[in-house]
This record gives sequence, structure tokens and C-alpha cells, in this order.
Amino acid sequence: MRLTILFGGASFEHEISIVSAITIKDKLSDFDLSFIFCDENHIFYLIDPLKMKATTFSKGEYKKMPQLTITNRKFLQKGMFSSTEHKGTVLNLIHGADGEDGSIAALFDFFHIDYIGPRVDASVFSYDKRYTKYLCEAKNIKRVDYEILNSSEHKEINIAYPIIVKPSRLGSSIGVSIVKDESELDYALDSAFEYDNSIIVEPFINGVKEYNLAGYFADGKIHFSTVEEPHKNEFLDFEKKYMDFSRSEQVLKADISSELEAKLKQTFEKVYLNLFEGALIRCDFFVIDDEVFLNEINPIPGSMANYLFDNFSEAIYSICRSFPRTKDIKVSYNYIHSISSAKGK
Amino acid sequence: MRLTILFGGASFEHEISIVSAITIKDKLSDFDLSFIFCDENHIFYLIDPLKMKATTFSKGEYKKMPQLTITNRKFLQKGMFSSTEHKGTVLNLIHGADGEDGSIAALFDFFHIDYIGPRVDASVFSYDKRYTKYLCEAKNIKRVDYEILNSSEHKEINIAYPIIVKPSRLGSSIGVSIVKDESELDYALDSAFEYDNSIIVEPFINGVKEYNLAGYFADGKIHFSTVEEPHKNEFLDFEKKYMDFSRSEQVLKADISSELEAKLKQTFEKVYLNLFEGALIRCDFFVIDDEVFLNEINPIPGSMANYLFDNFSEAIYSICRSFPRTKDIKVSYNYIHSISSAKGK
Repeated sequence: MRLTILFGGASFEHEISIVSAITIKDKLSDFDLSFIFCDENHIFYLIDPLKMKATTFSKGEYKKMPQLTITNRKFLQKGMFSSTEHKGTVLNLIHGADGEDGSIAALFDFFHIDYIGPRVDASVFSYDKRYTKYLCEAKNIKRVDYEILNSSEHKEINIAYPIIVKPSRLGSSIGVSIVKDESELDYALDSAFEYDNSIIVEPFINGVKEYNLAGYFADGKIHFSTVEEPHKNEFLDFEKKYMDFSRSEQVLKADISSELEAKLKQTFEKVYLNLFEGALIRCDFFVIDDEVFLNEINPIPGSMANYLFDNFSEAIYSICRSFPRTKDIKVSYNYIHSISSAKGK
Repeated sequence: MRLTILFGGASFEHEISIVSAITIKDKLSDFDLSFIFCDENHIFYLIDPLKMKATTFSKGEYKKMPQLTITNRKFLQKGMFSSTEHKGTVLNLIHGADGEDGSIAALFDFFHIDYIGPRVDASVFSYDKRYTKYLCEAKNIKRVDYEILNSSEHKEINIAYPIIVKPSRLGSSIGVSIVKDESELDYALDSAFEYDNSIIVEPFINGVKEYNLAGYFADGKIHFSTVEEPHKNEFLDFEKKYMDFSRSEQVLKADISSELEAKLKQTFEKVYLNLFEGALIRCDFFVIDDEVFLNEINPIPGSMANYLFDNFSEAIYSICRSFPRTKDIKVSYNYIHSISSAKGK
């Protein structure tokens, strides 16, 4: 089966998307793979699979490769006298802006290109941490307390220290600070407002238990990955996350009770169903007093969380078999016709 | 000032978008207007302003006009030997799917085209009636009770009759029924599921007071329209709404107390701020026992609700002066460079 990996993007996670794409290449060797790179100017390039290494991008060598234009049902590569069409399913592997904010999803929906990845609404609810909170409230999923600050207004924070300050709309810990007391607050707010005009503040819960669970919908049900207990740091900074995106070794199952595992899966299902179909997502949970709290949704996890699945290729195949179908809209001119004929035109 | 009206779209409201565009043309004669039509196949056409009449589209005459391609910062019209660029701000006037579901917003964000209309997140929260409810809950805005039904599951409805059954994601009353008792339910559900696999059910409140209020953010504050009390029918069916989209005569202010007017504006502001910047929207409210309930958000109202504004041209000008700015993302290759040099490559 043909599969195109789309990566890069005008995103702070541009580099880790490259690392993700390189990592995943070996994991999907059953597929007839091609690679499309989106540069920071939103120009698409067809990348020779043999050139899929980090320096192709950091040294700008990709600029010598063929440019592609997105159009109805395909990418087009224009030659001197004719054009080559690139069709088939795309795996959206652009992390952060473009890939996870709904842009690529809308582009592919608009141009009728099949893709693995979150749809527009799913992107909005996972990319913006405020909207993830809204989702939790609507679906009765536990979440940590929060407050929203906007750069245009001055507001007191009512959450007790230590707190964690995050830009509402970025992933990969960029602009995130842990604030131990008020003396550190201004600097943390300034850092976060560098990246977004909206900030989310939460209590920082030291030593909280964390578990990650990935999954996807296919063939009528959700398929879950292994539950992972991620390595503990105060929190993963960008550099550590960067390394994390190149993971390809299978992880060991977290040592948890079957009750807790069931609760994690149940919460995952509440998050996923009727929203994330078409995507393989990873949910990051906190567990406090045996209760499961949703911390974050990664709708395009680093290297697609391949290391959490026994058979990653099969996971990707089966998502392609189960894409959500939208109802076809046929345009008619019944009203205009009836009005025109009433007017005798 | 140049302004391009984008209309049409692969939407059940395709025809009313054409009517909207024709109506608005006369209202914006101060602008240097051009017209881009998006047909049901998502092909863009540049329409001669002199041909802006309904039959140009219903008779397929638009197909003889120049096709356009969307690209970075412009639409391109390809000629035999060279291309003509069409730049400038676009007013997104595609009602329903494409225009209001976030597709066009994402397309324009991606290609850096300035536009009047809801951004991607604002689209998601207004297009899907479920998410409008989520927004109300998060922002502490009153809304009518509701239940969600999905086509894949059987669920009892616990709301007392009469109820109103709506597809979650369509505008213009398509697929909407009022159900007086259980005998009418199956037919209503079937009709709604024709259009969407998710349905929203609400109590039908006979004789409820309705008020519409439009507004937009510009020059640091929200500018409100006249409050309108719409003509009462049981509810507006598609044909009546269709006629409604061609309105251009200024309406009379609803006869309400200044307290109620202030409450409507306050609720509008809660809905709008930090989400709908860049758009002129109309909120449709219910008033029950002097309390304001949000019924619906129209992020691209019919003919831009021009009839609610004293100076519609000035409204459009001032939105263009106040577009929300996103932070520029610069891509760097610092991590790849540092890793490459650590490896001695």
C-alpha cells in the first residue's frame, strides 16, 4: 500500500517532526512510502527517501528537490512539459502548528485527500489547552484545575503555588515554566506570552503518577497500545522531548492494576469517540488517589508512539481501512430555478 | 480599498451564499470589489462583477470564466504565457460547510491570505451545535438544555415533548423538525440523520422571545448592531431563510428595555472575545423570564447582517484595520545542528 509521510511545517516543532519522520521510516517498511516536506514558507517538496536524514533539511538541501502543489485529490509535481500526480493516503506527521492546529486537516478535507491525523474539530480540542478543558467538562472527564490569562488583561491568579504556566497553544514544553512562588511569576508569564497571547495556569503537582496510553479506532472499535509510565523529570524540557521523538524501541508495560488500566482505557474512550476517528492519538494522564485525570491529548504523538504498539504497521493499515466518512454534499439550484421561473426569467 | 467576496462552496447553503453575495454587492459599492466563486468541486472562478446574478451560477455560465488557484498570499489566474495575481483581503461569505466549518479559514491561514470571517477555532465552536453548548458551559453563558444522539447508538431521550431535533452541524434549518410527541420522533430522527451522524435534541419552547444581535471587534472594542426581533414563525424553514439572506433594508430596533439590551450585549461579548476576532457575527438569543440564553452563533450571517448596521461599509473597513495577528513562527535547526556536531558530522 502507498503511504505518504507529511512532515516539517511552520511550527516550533519543525525539527522534531523531521526526527519523527526519519524514525518512522524504518517502522513502516511494509509500505510503499513517499515523503513530502512542508517548509516554513508552506512550500511542499517531494523528498527522495534515500535523502531522509536530518542534514537534508538543516543544510537546506531539500530546496533542490521537486516542489509540489496541493490540488484536488492529489499533489502535483510540475515538469517542463507535463505534470506528475502524487495520490494516496497521507500520514500527517507535522507536530504543533499547521499539523495539529487544524490547518493541514482542513486543507486535506477541502482537497479530498485521505489522511491519518486529527480532523479539524479534534485538532481544535487538542491543540489549545483551554479547549481540552472545555472537552473534559462537557464529557465529564476529570482534569486538573486551571485559570486562563490573556495578554490584554490583568488578572490575579487564585491557584496556590507551586503552579505551572503554559502557553495555551504550543506543545513540547516550549514556554512552559514551573513557578515555585510569586517572585518567579512575572518572568514565567513573560516567557509564556512570548509564544501565545493566552496562557493557562495549573497547580503543579509534584510527584504525580503519570501514564501514557495511545490508541486508534478501526474496524468498529478502539485498539489500545501498551500503557507506559514515562520517565520522570520535573517535566520534559524541549531537548529531552526532542530525543523522545526518535524513540523506536518497544516499551515495557507499566506495572499497574487491571482496575487502573481499565479506568485509563475508559477515559481514553471518552476522549476519543466521535471526535478523533481517523487519528492515532496518545493521551497523557495523571493518576491522583486512584482517579484518572486527563493532562494532555497528543493527536499526532512523536514518531506516532510506534514504540507503544506490538504491530505498528498493522495499526497504520487498519486506520486506513476505517477513515471517518463525511456525507457528500450535492449542490442544487432548486431555489434559484424556482425564483427565476416565478419571475418569468 | 480592494475587497474580494468569496462565495458558493460545497454546502447545502450554496445557493443562499450566492444570494448573500449579490445582496452585499450594492452595500459595499465604496470598495473596489472582486468576486471569487467556489463551486461544488472546490474549483475557484473569478466572476465578472457585471455577471453577478443568480442565473450565472444556476445555468453554469460561471464555468466559462477564469479559474483561479490558491497559493501563497494570493489567488493565481494562469494565462497562456503568464499568470495574473489576485491579492488583497477576502470576505468569506460561504455559508455552512466550507465557509463556516473552518476549512476556508484554515486554507487562508495556511496561505497567509487576510480575511474577514471566523478563524478555525471560532468556526468549530459555532458550526457544530454541540460545541456551542460546550462553549456556553465553559464561559458561563446560559443555553437551552440538550441531549446528543449519535447514529451509531440507541439512546432514550429524556427531554419532555415538544422537542426540536437538529443535525449537529448544519445551518439554515435543514433537517430540523419540531416533534410534538413520540409518534413523530422516528421520522424526525431519520430526517436529521440524513444530514449528519450526530443530532442535538432540545426542548421546543413555544412562543419564546427571540432577539438577534450582530457585532464585530475593531479598534480595541466590540461594535454592536441594532438589536432585532426577528419575524416569528414556528421556526424559519429553508425557503424563508433563503429569502432572508437577500435582506438589505435597515431594520427597526426591537422594543426592549435598556437593561435587556445591556444583557444581550454582555452575553454577546462573552461569546465573542478571544475567539471571534476578525469576524462579524450574529448571535441569536432566546429571552426567558428576563434571562438571556444563547441559541445560535452565525459566524457568517446571511448578507453579513448588513441590514442591522447603520454604516455597513464602515463596519467592513474597520474589521480590516483590526485583524487578529498570529505570532510569527521562525524555524531553526539548532537541535539538528547541535546533534550533528556532537556526532562529528
